Amino acid sequence: MTHGRILFGGDYNPEQWPEETWYDDVRLMKDAGVNSVTLGVFSWAKLEPHPGAREFGWLDRLMDLMHAGGIGVVLATPTSSPPPWMGRLHPDTLPRDEDGRTEWWGGRQHFSHSSATYRRYAAAVTEDLAARYAGHPALTMWHINNEYCTYDYGDEAAAAFRRWLRDRYGTLDALNTAWGTAFWSQGYDSWDGILPPRRAHYLKNPGQVLDFRRFTSDALLECFLAERDIVRRHTPHTPVTTNFMPLWSGQDGWRWAEEEDVVSVDLYPDPRDPLGAQYGALVQDLTRSQARGPWMLMEQAAGPVNWRGANHPKPRGLNRLWSLQAVARGADAVCYFQWRQSRQGAEKFHSGMVGHAGERGRTFQEIKRIGAELREIGGEVAGTRLTAGVAVLHDWHSWWATDQDGRPSTHVGYPDVLRAWHRALWEAHLTADFAHPEHDLTAYRLVVVPQLYLLTDAAIDNLLAYVSGGGTLVCGFLTGIADEDDRIRPGGMDARLRGLFGIRTLHEWWPLEPGETVECEGGLRGTLWSEEIEAAGTADETVPYRGGELDGLPAVLRRGRAWYVSTLPEPEALRALLARVAAGAGVHPPLDGLPAGVEAVRRGELLFLLNHGREPVTVDVPGTHRDLLTGAAVTGRTTLGRYGVAVLKP
Amino acid sequence: MTHGRILFGGDYNPEQWPEETWYDDVRLMKDAGVNSVTLGVFSWAKLEPHPGAREFGWLDRLMDLMHAGGIGVVLATPTSSPPPWMGRLHPDTLPRDEDGRTEWWGGRQHFSHSSATYRRYAAAVTEDLAARYAGHPALTMWHINNEYCTYDYGDEAAAAFRRWLRDRYGTLDALNTAWGTAFWSQGYDSWDGILPPRRAHYLKNPGQVLDFRRFTSDALLECFLAERDIVRRHTPHTPVTTNFMPLWSGQDGWRWAEEEDVVSVDLYPDPRDPLGAQYGALVQDLTRSQARGPWMLMEQAAGPVNWRGANHPKPRGLNRLWSLQAVARGADAVCYFQWRQSRQGAEKFHSGMVGHAGERGRTFQEIKRIGAELREIGGEVAGTRLTAGVAVLHDWHSWWATDQDGRPSTHVGYPDVLRAWHRALWEAHLTADFAHPEHDLTAYRLVVVPQLYLLTDAAIDNLLAYVSGGGTLVCGFLTGIADEDDRIRPGGMDARLRGLFGIRTLHEWWPLEPGETVECEGGLRGTLWSEEIEAAGTADETVPYRGGELDGLPAVLRRGRAWYVSTLPEPEALRALLARVAAGAGVHPPLDGLPAGVEAVRRGELLFLLNHGREPVTVDVPGTHRDLLTGAAVTGRTTLGRYGVAVLKP
Amino acid sequence: MTHGRILFGGDYNPEQWPEETWYDDVRLMKDAGVNSVTLGVFSWAKLEPHPGAREFGWLDRLMDLMHAGGIGVVLATPTSSPPPWMGRLHPDTLPRDEDGRTEWWGGRQHFSHSSATYRRYAAAVTEDLAARYAGHPALTMWHINNEYCTYDYGDEAAAAFRRWLRDRYGTLDALNTAWGTAFWSQGYDSWDGILPPRRAHYLKNPGQVLDFRRFTSDALLECFLAERDIVRRHTPHTPVTTNFMPLWSGQDGWRWAEEEDVVSVDLYPDPRDPLGAQYGALVQDLTRSQARGPWMLMEQAAGPVNWRGANHPKPRGLNRLWSLQAVARGADAVCYFQWRQSRQGAEKFHSGMVGHAGERGRTFQEIKRIGAELREIGGEVAGTRLTAGVAVLHDWHSWWATDQDGRPSTHVGYPDVLRAWHRALWEAHLTADFAHPEHDLTAYRLVVVPQLYLLTDAAIDNLLAYVSGGGTLVCGFLTGIADEDDRIRPGGMDARLRGLFGIRTLHEWWPLEPGETVECEGGLRGTLWSEEIEAAGTADETVPYRGGELDGLPAVLRRGRAWYVSTLPEPEALRALLARVAAGAGVHPPLDGLPAGVEAVRRGELLFLLNHGREPVTVDVPGTHRDLLTGAAVTGRTTLGRYGVAVLKP
Repeated sequence: MTHGRILFGGDYNPEQWPEETWYDDVRLMKDAGVNSVTLGVFSWAKLEPHPGAREFGWLDRLMDLMHAGGIGVVLATPTSSPPPWMGRLHPDTLPRDEDGRTEWWGGRQHFSHSSATYRRYAAAVTEDLAARYAGHPALTMWHINNEYCTYDYGDEAAAAFRRWLRDRYGTLDALNTAWGTAFWSQGYDSWDGILPPRRAHYLKNPGQVLDFRRFTSDALLECFLAERDIVRRHTPHTPVTTNFMPLWSGQDGWRWAEEEDVVSVDLYPDPRDPLGAQYGALVQDLTRSQARGPWMLMEQAAGPVNWRGANHPKPRGLNRLWSLQAVARGADAVCYFQWRQSRQGAEKFHSGMVGHAGERGRTFQEIKRIGAELREIGGEVAGTRLTAGVAVLHDWHSWWATDQDGRPSTHVGYPDVLRAWHRALWEAHLTADFAHPEHDLTAYRLVVVPQLYLLTDAAIDNLLAYVSGGGTLVCGFLTGIADEDDRIRPGGMDARLRGLFGIRTLHEWWPLEPGETVECEGGLRGTLWSEEIEAAGTADETVPYRGGELDGLPAVLRRGRAWYVSTLPEPEALRALLARVAAGAGVHPPLDGLPAGVEAVRRGELLFLLNHGREPVTVDVPGTHRDLLTGAAVTGRTTLGRYGVAVLKP
Repeated sequence: MTHGRILFGGDYNPEQWPEETWYDDVRLMKDAGVNSVTLGVFSWAKLEPHPGAREFGWLDRLMDLMHAGGIGVVLATPTSSPPPWMGRLHPDTLPRDEDGRTEWWGGRQHFSHSSATYRRYAAAVTEDLAARYAGHPALTMWHINNEYCTYDYGDEAAAAFRRWLRDRYGTLDALNTAWGTAFWSQGYDSWDGILPPRRAHYLKNPGQVLDFRRFTSDALLECFLAERDIVRRHTPHTPVTTNFMPLWSGQDGWRWAEEEDVVSVDLYPDPRDPLGAQYGALVQDLTRSQARGPWMLMEQAAGPVNWRGANHPKPRGLNRLWSLQAVARGADAVCYFQWRQSRQGAEKFHSGMVGHAGERGRTFQEIKRIGAELREIGGEVAGTRLTAGVAVLHDWHSWWATDQDGRPSTHVGYPDVLRAWHRALWEAHLTADFAHPEHDLTAYRLVVVPQLYLLTDAAIDNLLAYVSGGGTLVCGFLTGIADEDDRIRPGGMDARLRGLFGIRTLHEWWPLEPGETVECEGGLRGTLWSEEIEAAGTADETVPYRGGELDGLPAVLRRGRAWYVSTLPEPEALRALLARVAAGAGVHPPLDGLPAGVEAVRRGELLFLLNHGREPVTVDVPGTHRDLLTGAAVTGRTTLGRYGVAVLKP
Repeated sequence: MTHGRILFGGDYNPEQWPEETWYDDVRLMKDAGVNSVTLGVFSWAKLEPHPGAREFGWLDRLMDLMHAGGIGVVLATPTSSPPPWMGRLHPDTLPRDEDGRTEWWGGRQHFSHSSATYRRYAAAVTEDLAARYAGHPALTMWHINNEYCTYDYGDEAAAAFRRWLRDRYGTLDALNTAWGTAFWSQGYDSWDGILPPRRAHYLKNPGQVLDFRRFTSDALLECFLAERDIVRRHTPHTPVTTNFMPLWSGQDGWRWAEEEDVVSVDLYPDPRDPLGAQYGALVQDLTRSQARGPWMLMEQAAGPVNWRGANHPKPRGLNRLWSLQAVARGADAVCYFQWRQSRQGAEKFHSGMVGHAGERGRTFQEIKRIGAELREIGGEVAGTRLTAGVAVLHDWHSWWATDQDGRPSTHVGYPDVLRAWHRALWEAHLTADFAHPEHDLTAYRLVVVPQLYLLTDAAIDNLLAYVSGGGTLVCGFLTGIADEDDRIRPGGMDARLRGLFGIRTLHEWWPLEPGETVECEGGLRGTLWSEEIEAAGTADETVPYRGGELDGLPAVLRRGRAWYVSTLPEPEALRALLARVAAGAGVHPPLDGLPAGVEAVRRGELLFLLNHGREPVTVDVPGTHRDLLTGAAVTGRTTLGRYGVAVLKP
């Protein structure tokens, strides 16, 4: 992506329009500074209208047209939405849900990841697509499938699950041990007896559920790899991506990102969410961390989406603000779903860069401005990197282990906790990377663990080594509880972690009801959770609970540079705590005295300032800079208007 | 129905009782002034206890008994509830839901409208029933089936759906175009690939969903027509009806009504609903409009129903009030489900005209009074007509198009919006008809469109012609958005309608959260929805939004006699707006100075006054009238007691 | 159980642990005073790893180990959780739900009670288990299956249902009459046409639903009896039990208890429920009444469970308090699920006597204290009985008849009403037995009927005889409405009961909305329900409604010693009413002047005082007693600390 410019454009589904509209599209794309479109995402039925047929002529014309217009093409394999004939002729390609219900065609993504038939058809169409466009000058990137996100509990998936389990465990004994099947009389005497975790009378085996999620991520990854390898064979130097859904639970995003050349994500914060910008920042930070560098915003909405209760449009300026936020946080591509808003079909109320109101519409007018500005700053920003002093640890396997029934509290949701901790850092103006718990953490001064219920031995070693190597660690509750098989560690929490934090005995968890809080010394109030902990006497600092059954017991413990927080502090308290710990670890915001609601991020040598408020705000910026967006010199301070942005170069 | 009397009675299910009870029933019916009962609705298992058997003796005796008692019989075909042997011997007659689940027997309406087997049995029993009672003197009307209301997603329905689609579209190309299958790779290469909109992974094709609802209405209508034609062959002069559920979404009520001799409806407002009377008025107005004259209240409850959360009885006087309201609004028949409350079965807690408390019960005592009064006024009122100056446009197809997933706001419900606008008229004491958007509207001075998202070209022509012919039109938001295939019209709203109202550009919809309001000039507050509109400069009058993102933009636009309202004003504001517009159009309430809570309706030369409050109220009535209920002369004013009614004749 | 000691222990699932842990378990059990464990509940896959295999060695060792440790074994048949091979090889053993969905293995209780295959395997393993351990000295009791609680709507269950119906009704005519199939055309012409009440289009036949629940209870009972008879054949003198779930709707607990030697129950009040202790008391009173003497608390939790929203631990002292409450109310066994908290599997977050925190954990420390105290008091208390002056009538069949759709109010839940009335008695310090409406009631001075919608003729005779024999009766609303076929009695309520209470006509029920109240004279406020009753003039006392539609009509009627309460008074009002009526009937609390929150129960000659509050409280106790827990003498008064208990012997 890093050719000195930021990719700007979106999904383009021209099958919906008569060919004369394509020419108008090109005119408007040029007008808006669009330099990249994604073609072919939903083209399977058009490319292969009957089994084995190939209709490439229309796509040839489009590829040529794009090339003539100077617009690069991210070419998608069409495999996320099989044509109706697939299900009709091959019902085995249709997925089944937990209750045994078929997911029929008529929507999209109605394919079983484990279906041999589906995979065969998918490989064939990918092969022919890659062969045909391998040398096309418009081709800039491959986009495999779209938003992989399906489960399948059917019989062919069951067989694949068994194969996956055999690979993982080798013997039934090992599987029985890992799943703890001795409980509830679940011991398997035959591989054939193992099923996906289908509807059951009561709670399911947690190991089975956890492994089924691992398997599902891997089964989808197999689909991705098969298509990736085909296109790579034809175009070894063309990068390959697939677009993640933001913070989606179903894929092990660390594992997947390793297999991509470009990491891309779809991002749809609710314009009415007061924390929409923070949610965006989280997804952007995570995607950047998966990419280990610049990344691609594959989809966002120019206006409203169509799947919320009320689908709010973006107020004037918000699309620009959030687009530049993505750039600030490392994006080298700012794209949309979709170029021209549909007039028919399931997403006709999902906005487009060219909305129903057409080119006179406010939405398109704002798109034009964004395109122009990205072109303006592209040369300075594309390819540059961010450096974060903080890492937030995140792991899908731990999420999977906690996202089950039969847990201590259904009110504790992994993504909510992750968002709460990231929010505290964001509100403290601290830019954070995300990292896997087994990643090398030595580059960070502060490591934050919002919640990692499941930690492998290697991960625990890593954390201990990080702290003993001088790092500062802050851990939230429900961390280090289970090993990688979801087996509770002796003492209810890993003994070495308990030692690290100065915890002698973890007597009981005291989950809270929704809305309930617990008081702690110094005015800190906790939510969601509390714990009955007996300190070891080795702690250097504690903040005790005040009142209630836990009166006097430690809510927060610190031993050296290791902190344990046994509740979820209210937002302001968690922000203050993290700001204090970060400062102690030598991590500081990019500017002093930043007002609330202003986001400040350094990318390379550039300083991005983003005003998330609707009122103008003045920011002190020591020294002299040039604002790349306006060309104006900025000395000492600058004022950002409603949703205003400055991109300051020293 | 119009033989100078109002039909009074109800569903009579004597199968539940020993024959000696029948004689007691006749005694009580006569006591109560009952002159009509509906027999046979649930008699299939009794008429045909084994496949092909016929047991008519019991029904012969009942028909004779009714005749002897002077009670006419509305004879029902029993086809809404097949006997258990049907499902047992012919599982193909059972419907399947969206998820593939069978709807088993053991309840009622467990028949697939598309099952050839079911239709064959239904025709046979209808044939024999019609042949047997064709000449019976008690027979006054035919009642086909009961509350048609089922869907079927099974295989036989799928085949029928395909046949229906072939008839509609002729070619697959036409279908693919109409459904916009180019999006999401849904192009059909074979009729056999088309299914009902069964459970899918994500959003379904809206065209498919819309056509499936059209098909379902038509498939049910085929069932109705088949039975209607049979009975007509035997009794060409006996009117035929089938009872609608009130404002039910599943049938195109305009189309159906054309096929009936008598239009009948079931009506069950919640006695605790403060707007129960308005809801009743709406259903009555709609039914009268479908009937284009007098209609039949086929079912109401003498007391509580049994399907709400808490099923409230009717307070003293309410049954009479609501019964007379139906007469005021055009009913020539006031009937109940059911005559004698069941002691067993699924509806034993649904009240009857003779409740569990028996003839001494308050419920039956009130029934007697109603019967007597209807007999008193019948001669004056039966067969007379209402004239309304206002038409409210309503179309099931538009409803079907909006009642889907993936829309701008799930909080906007078509029937809620319809109710809100009708309420405003009702509270302004303006009697309205309903009309289809393609009906001739020239008879009305004011046409109100609460919301017609889907409008055909012909409908738009009709509206434009109506206004240019001097009519006054008020349109609510989300009107004229899509064509008859649910294809968004260029500009996001029909261009001619935009021109009509003085709208240059419809930039964005701003749906509101539940409970949220937007302020407009002059204190008007909007709910549910708002819009970012750029006026064309041709508008004669606008009411702008005040504050927020839409500050200064037009909330209401008027150009000449055409009004557009881009939000749902709060009730009092909408009432005031419509009262003002109506007055401007020369439409006025039947009396000046009517108190709130008093409904005043003219039917023929009679003026009905209904007090929906529990406190007495005095109404000024210029001139001298006779109150048909009391016989008293009314000069200048009259006082209505709690739930009181006057029927005034000049 | 009554060998001069209280059984103390819990479910022990040693399959989960390596054998070396077993020795540690015995050490800790002895430390905690454990004298009984339940083995084998979930051992089927371990006992029979392949079809027909038998692996008893591990259990032999455990039985011997327990015996050596002086710990008795309640040996369970493992039939509640079949091994995975059962479902794999015999899909016919898997149950189907109402919607036809299979309940797969992977959880527990995935067996169809009606499966011949399942029953054959269950009998075989029971046979071999009983044969092997018949003479073992550790064996003290048999525990059949575990928490019978399943439904099955599949085909084999359907066939069994039909057989059960043939037995009950003999002829189809009788069945059709009982179910009222004349309504809605449901008349059966063949036994083969009858199904379980599977998913239907609308309301199901209430008789069918009621009988299906009767059948289900009986089908489960057949499973129990089959296994019970096998173990009895081998060990005629070893008592047999199966553990009930507390107040579970699915079993006719009166009928089941007759077939058990020991009645046992599982009890899990929410530690955060302010009425948790009252709920516990209710279940204990019911279980004692089923047992007609001492009973067994088979399962409770030492800390949190894992199936609530937030699973709260037991605060310090609460486990002891609630354990001694069970003893006070007749338990001769205080046991837990489970001994050692799982590290894996679906219940690893359900606490154990030895929690994850291990022996240093607060939970185990409290267990030790409880064990010691039970040993201390065991000799004085085990085998003694309670005498209650009050009986609360309860019947599962009546519950089943009301727990259906299509009722007057979905807000009226049978168990809620039962709890409300029991709470009033509990707060009035009146210990109550439960009784079946056909039981001999002559031993009680006061009989309370919270709600018995369905009453047989025999039950009505019983109530009338009880009152005419001098007893005092208080009946709540919705009592005596239906006969045993759920057929409404003439007049809407049994005529003899109306006569008993002085009710002339029951005009209408007026159910209330949630949160709504009705005012009555004297400040009494009713909830949930009210009634439009016309008194007969024979009532000796009435409390009228005040205001609203029912103004002046009787809310409460008394005729002689028979009271009828047509609403659910608010808690304090119901308590006051029952206290007054009880006093009038000569029923008094065990002590005068008991503070709120202190429970006082006499068992044998012992007086248990339990402080359910967190603040100390002083109780006046006339005379001199010895507190068996402390050994201290108590003269005139005693002070109970937070959650404190005294067991006073005169």
